[in-house]
Amino acid sequence: MGSIHRRRAAGSWEGVAAARYDDPAVAGVEKHELIGPADGARSYRVRYFHVPAGARTALERHPHDHGVVIEHGRARVTLGDEVHELGPGDVVYVEGDELHCFEAVGDEPLGFICVAPPARRA
Amino acid sequence: MGSIHRRRAAGSWEGVAAARYDDPAVAGVEKHELIGPADGARSYRVRYFHVPAGARTALERHPHDHGVVIEHGRARVTLGDEVHELGPGDVVYVEGDELHCFEAVGDEPLGFICVAPPARRA
Repeated sequence: MGSIHRRRAAGSWEGVAAARYDDPAVAGVEKHELIGPADGARSYRVRYFHVPAGARTALERHPHDHGVVIEHGRARVTLGDEVHELGPGDVVYVEGDELHCFEAVGDEPLGFICVAPPARRA
Repeated sequence: MGSIHRRRAAGSWEGVAAARYDDPAVAGVEKHELIGPADGARSYRVRYFHVPAGARTALERHPHDHGVVIEHGRARVTLGDEVHELGPGDVVYVEGDELHCFEAVGDEPLGFICVAPPARRA
Protein backbone atom coordinates (compact mmCIF):
# COMPACT_ATOMS: atom_id res chain seq x y z
CA MET A 1 0.00 0.00 0.00
CA GLY A 2 1.32 3.42 -0.94
CA SER A 3 1.15 6.53 1.19
CA ILE A 4 0.17 10.19 1.17
CA HIS A 5 2.03 13.00 2.95
CA ARG A 6 0.05 16.23 2.82
CA ARG A 7 2.06 19.43 3.11
CA ARG A 8 1.19 21.60 6.06
CA ALA A 9 1.10 25.38 5.70
CA ALA A 10 4.33 25.64 7.68
CA GLY A 11 6.45 23.83 5.07
CA SER A 12 6.31 20.53 6.86
CA TRP A 13 4.53 17.31 5.89
CA GLU A 14 2.19 14.93 7.66
CA GLY A 15 4.07 11.77 8.61
CA VAL A 16 7.51 13.25 7.80
CA ALA A 17 9.98 14.29 10.52
CA ALA A 18 12.40 17.14 9.77
CA ALA A 19 16.08 16.42 10.39
CA ARG A 20 18.61 19.10 11.26
CA TYR A 21 22.33 18.97 10.66
CA ASP A 22 24.83 19.19 13.47
CA ASP A 23 27.47 20.77 11.21
CA PRO A 24 27.59 24.50 12.21
CA ALA A 25 28.64 25.36 8.64
CA VAL A 26 25.13 24.49 7.51
CA ALA A 27 23.19 25.91 10.46
CA GLY A 28 19.45 25.96 9.98
CA VAL A 29 19.31 23.63 7.00
CA GLU A 30 16.45 21.13 7.32
CA LYS A 31 16.00 17.86 5.50
CA HIS A 32 12.60 16.20 5.11
CA GLU A 33 12.58 12.66 3.76
CA LEU A 34 9.33 12.78 1.80
CA ILE A 35 9.63 9.27 0.37
CA GLY A 36 11.99 6.57 1.55
CA PRO A 37 12.23 3.26 3.35
CA ALA A 38 9.48 4.26 5.80
CA ASP A 39 7.09 4.23 2.81
CA GLY A 40 8.47 0.98 1.46
CA ALA A 41 10.49 2.71 -1.28
CA ARG A 42 13.57 0.65 -2.07
CA SER A 43 14.89 2.18 -5.31
CA TYR A 44 15.32 5.86 -4.39
CA ARG A 45 14.73 8.50 -1.72
CA VAL A 46 12.91 11.80 -2.34
CA ARG A 47 13.96 14.54 0.08
CA TYR A 48 13.09 18.23 0.51
CA PHE A 49 15.76 20.63 1.75
CA HIS A 50 14.98 23.99 3.33
CA VAL A 51 17.94 26.41 3.40
CA PRO A 52 17.47 29.74 5.25
CA ALA A 53 18.41 32.95 3.39
CA GLY A 54 22.19 33.31 3.41
CA ALA A 55 22.82 29.70 4.44
CA ARG A 56 24.07 26.77 2.37
CA THR A 57 24.31 23.02 2.30
CA ALA A 58 27.65 21.29 2.85
CA LEU A 59 30.24 21.69 0.11
CA GLU A 60 30.84 18.01 -0.49
CA ARG A 61 31.36 15.12 -2.85
CA HIS A 62 30.40 11.47 -2.38
CA PRO A 63 29.82 8.40 -4.54
CA HIS A 64 26.06 8.75 -4.85
CA ASP A 65 24.38 11.09 -7.33
CA HIS A 66 21.57 13.63 -6.83
CA GLY A 67 18.64 14.75 -8.92
CA VAL A 68 17.54 18.24 -7.83
CA VAL A 69 14.55 20.46 -8.70
CA ILE A 70 14.50 23.99 -7.23
CA GLU A 71 11.11 24.67 -5.65
CA HIS A 72 11.43 28.28 -4.41
CA GLY A 73 14.03 30.94 -3.79
CA ARG A 74 17.31 31.61 -5.61
CA ALA A 75 20.21 29.17 -5.52
CA ARG A 76 23.90 29.62 -6.14
CA VAL A 77 24.85 26.10 -7.14
CA THR A 78 28.39 24.78 -7.14
CA LEU A 79 28.66 21.86 -9.57
CA GLY A 80 32.20 20.63 -10.06
CA ASP A 81 34.26 23.69 -10.98
CA GLU A 82 31.24 25.67 -12.19
CA VAL A 83 28.86 28.00 -10.36
CA HIS A 84 25.30 28.55 -11.62
CA GLU A 85 22.59 30.86 -10.31
CA LEU A 86 19.26 29.10 -10.55
CA GLY A 87 15.62 29.63 -9.60
CA PRO A 88 12.29 27.82 -9.28
CA GLY A 89 11.77 24.93 -11.67
CA ASP A 90 15.42 24.68 -12.65
CA VAL A 91 16.93 21.19 -12.56
CA VAL A 92 20.40 19.98 -11.56
CA TYR A 93 21.92 16.55 -11.96
CA VAL A 94 24.91 16.03 -9.63
CA GLU A 95 26.96 13.07 -10.79
CA GLY A 96 28.57 10.70 -8.28
CA ASP A 97 31.82 12.10 -6.81
CA GLU A 98 31.08 15.57 -8.16
CA LEU A 99 31.64 18.54 -5.82
CA HIS A 100 28.38 20.33 -5.04
CA CYS A 101 26.81 22.94 -2.77
CA PHE A 102 23.46 24.76 -2.75
CA GLU A 103 23.44 28.27 -1.28
CA ALA A 104 20.36 30.45 -0.70
CA VAL A 105 21.07 33.84 -2.25
CA GLY A 106 18.89 36.93 -1.84
CA ASP A 107 16.37 37.56 0.92
CA GLU A 108 14.34 34.38 0.55
CA PRO A 109 14.95 30.88 1.87
CA LEU A 110 15.73 28.22 -0.70
CA GLY A 111 13.72 25.03 -1.06
CA PHE A 112 14.57 22.14 -3.32
CA ILE A 113 13.68 18.52 -3.95
CA CYS A 114 16.65 16.16 -4.01
CA VAL A 115 16.40 12.58 -5.22
CA ALA A 116 19.10 10.10 -4.18
CA PRO A 117 19.68 6.37 -4.42
CA PRO A 118 18.81 4.26 -1.35
CA ALA A 119 21.04 4.84 1.67
CA ARG A 120 23.86 2.34 1.97
CA ARG A 121 23.33 -0.27 4.58
CA ALA A 122 25.42 0.22 7.72
CA MET B 1 30.01 15.74 -15.21
CA GLY B 2 26.51 16.66 -14.07
CA SER B 3 24.05 18.81 -15.95
CA ILE B 4 21.70 21.78 -15.62
CA HIS B 5 18.27 22.10 -17.26
CA ARG B 6 16.88 25.59 -16.81
CA ARG B 7 13.10 25.91 -16.92
CA ARG B 8 11.78 28.11 -19.67
CA ALA B 9 8.80 30.40 -19.03
CA ALA B 10 6.61 28.10 -21.11
CA GLY B 11 6.88 25.14 -18.72
CA SER B 12 9.55 23.42 -20.74
CA TRP B 13 13.21 22.86 -19.95
CA GLU B 14 16.44 23.47 -21.81
CA GLY B 15 17.82 20.17 -23.07
CA VAL B 16 14.61 18.22 -22.28
CA ALA B 17 12.21 17.06 -25.00
CA ALA B 18 8.50 16.76 -24.13
CA ALA B 19 6.87 13.42 -24.94
CA ARG B 20 3.18 13.03 -25.69
CA TYR B 21 1.07 9.93 -25.27
CA ASP B 22 -0.70 8.24 -28.13
CA ASP B 23 -3.45 6.93 -25.86
CA PRO B 24 -6.55 9.10 -26.58
CA ALA B 25 -7.74 8.53 -23.00
CA VAL B 26 -4.90 10.75 -21.82
CA ALA B 27 -5.01 13.38 -24.57
CA GLY B 28 -2.81 16.37 -23.95
CA VAL B 29 -0.72 14.87 -21.14
CA GLU B 30 2.96 15.70 -21.55
CA LYS B 31 5.93 13.98 -19.94
CA HIS B 32 9.30 15.70 -19.57
CA GLU B 33 12.20 13.50 -18.48
CA LEU B 34 14.13 16.04 -16.40
CA ILE B 35 16.82 13.60 -15.24
CA GLY B 36 17.52 10.19 -16.71
CA PRO B 37 19.96 8.17 -18.75
CA ALA B 38 20.72 11.15 -21.02
CA ASP B 39 22.28 12.83 -17.95
CA GLY B 40 24.11 9.69 -16.88
CA ALA B 41 21.62 8.89 -14.11
CA ARG B 42 21.44 5.15 -13.59
CA SER B 43 19.56 4.75 -10.30
CA TYR B 44 16.32 6.67 -10.97
CA ARG B 45 14.46 8.90 -13.39
CA VAL B 46 12.91 12.29 -12.48
CA ARG B 47 10.03 13.25 -14.74
CA TYR B 48 7.56 16.17 -14.84
CA PHE B 49 3.99 15.55 -16.00
CA HIS B 50 1.70 18.29 -17.29
CA VAL B 51 -2.00 17.37 -17.29
CA PRO B 52 -4.46 19.85 -18.87
CA ALA B 53 -7.51 20.87 -16.82
CA GLY B 54 -10.07 18.06 -16.95
CA ALA B 55 -7.59 15.49 -18.27
CA ARG B 56 -5.92 12.60 -16.47
CA THR B 57 -3.05 10.17 -16.69
CA ALA B 58 -3.68 6.51 -17.49
CA LEU B 59 -5.45 4.47 -14.81
CA GLU B 60 -2.85 1.75 -14.52
CA ARG B 61 -0.75 -0.56 -12.40
CA HIS B 62 2.73 -1.93 -13.10
CA PRO B 63 5.60 -3.44 -11.15
CA HIS B 64 7.60 -0.24 -10.68
CA ASP B 65 6.81 2.31 -7.99
CA HIS B 66 6.45 6.11 -8.19
CA GLY B 67 7.39 8.98 -5.91
CA VAL B 68 5.21 12.01 -6.69
CA VAL B 69 5.25 15.65 -5.56
CA ILE B 70 2.40 17.90 -6.76
CA GLU B 71 3.83 21.14 -8.15
CA HIS B 72 0.71 23.10 -9.13
CA GLY B 73 -3.02 22.65 -9.64
CA ARG B 74 -5.43 20.30 -7.90
CA ALA B 75 -5.24 16.53 -8.29
CA ARG B 76 -7.77 13.79 -7.77
CA VAL B 77 -5.49 10.88 -7.08
CA THR B 78 -6.55 7.25 -7.31
CA LEU B 79 -4.29 5.12 -5.12
CA GLY B 80 -5.39 1.52 -4.85
CA ASP B 81 -9.04 1.61 -3.79
CA GLU B 82 -8.78 5.12 -2.31
CA VAL B 83 -9.28 8.55 -3.88
CA HIS B 84 -7.55 11.65 -2.44
CA GLU B 85 -7.84 15.28 -3.47
CA LEU B 86 -4.41 16.88 -3.24
CA GLY B 87 -2.69 20.18 -4.01
CA PRO B 88 0.73 21.79 -4.34
CA GLY B 89 3.45 20.31 -2.15
CA ASP B 90 1.50 17.16 -1.35
CA VAL B 91 3.39 13.89 -1.73
CA VAL B 92 2.23 10.47 -2.96
CA TYR B 93 4.08 7.17 -2.88
CA VAL B 94 2.63 4.65 -5.34
CA GLU B 95 3.82 1.16 -4.49
CA GLY B 96 4.65 -1.34 -7.22
CA ASP B 97 1.54 -3.00 -8.71
CA GLU B 98 -0.74 -0.44 -7.08
CA LEU B 99 -3.54 1.03 -9.20
CA HIS B 100 -3.05 4.77 -9.73
CA CYS B 101 -4.29 7.76 -11.73
CA PHE B 102 -3.74 11.52 -11.50
CA GLU B 103 -6.60 13.73 -12.70
CA ALA B 104 -6.53 17.53 -13.00
CA VAL B 105 -9.62 18.86 -11.23
CA GLY B 106 -10.81 22.48 -11.32
CA ASP B 107 -9.89 25.07 -13.93
CA GLU B 108 -6.11 24.78 -13.72
CA PRO B 109 -3.74 22.31 -15.32
CA LEU B 110 -1.98 19.90 -12.98
CA GLY B 111 1.79 19.60 -12.79
CA PHE B 112 3.69 17.01 -10.80
CA ILE B 113 7.14 15.55 -10.41
CA CYS B 114 7.26 11.76 -10.64
CA VAL B 115 10.33 9.74 -9.68
CA ALA B 116 10.66 6.19 -10.99
CA PRO B 117 13.30 3.47 -11.06
CA PRO B 118 15.39 3.14 -14.22
CA ALA B 119 13.51 1.93 -17.28
CA ARG B 120 13.82 -1.78 -17.86
CA ARG B 121 16.16 -2.71 -20.63
CA ALA B 122 14.40 -3.86 -23.78
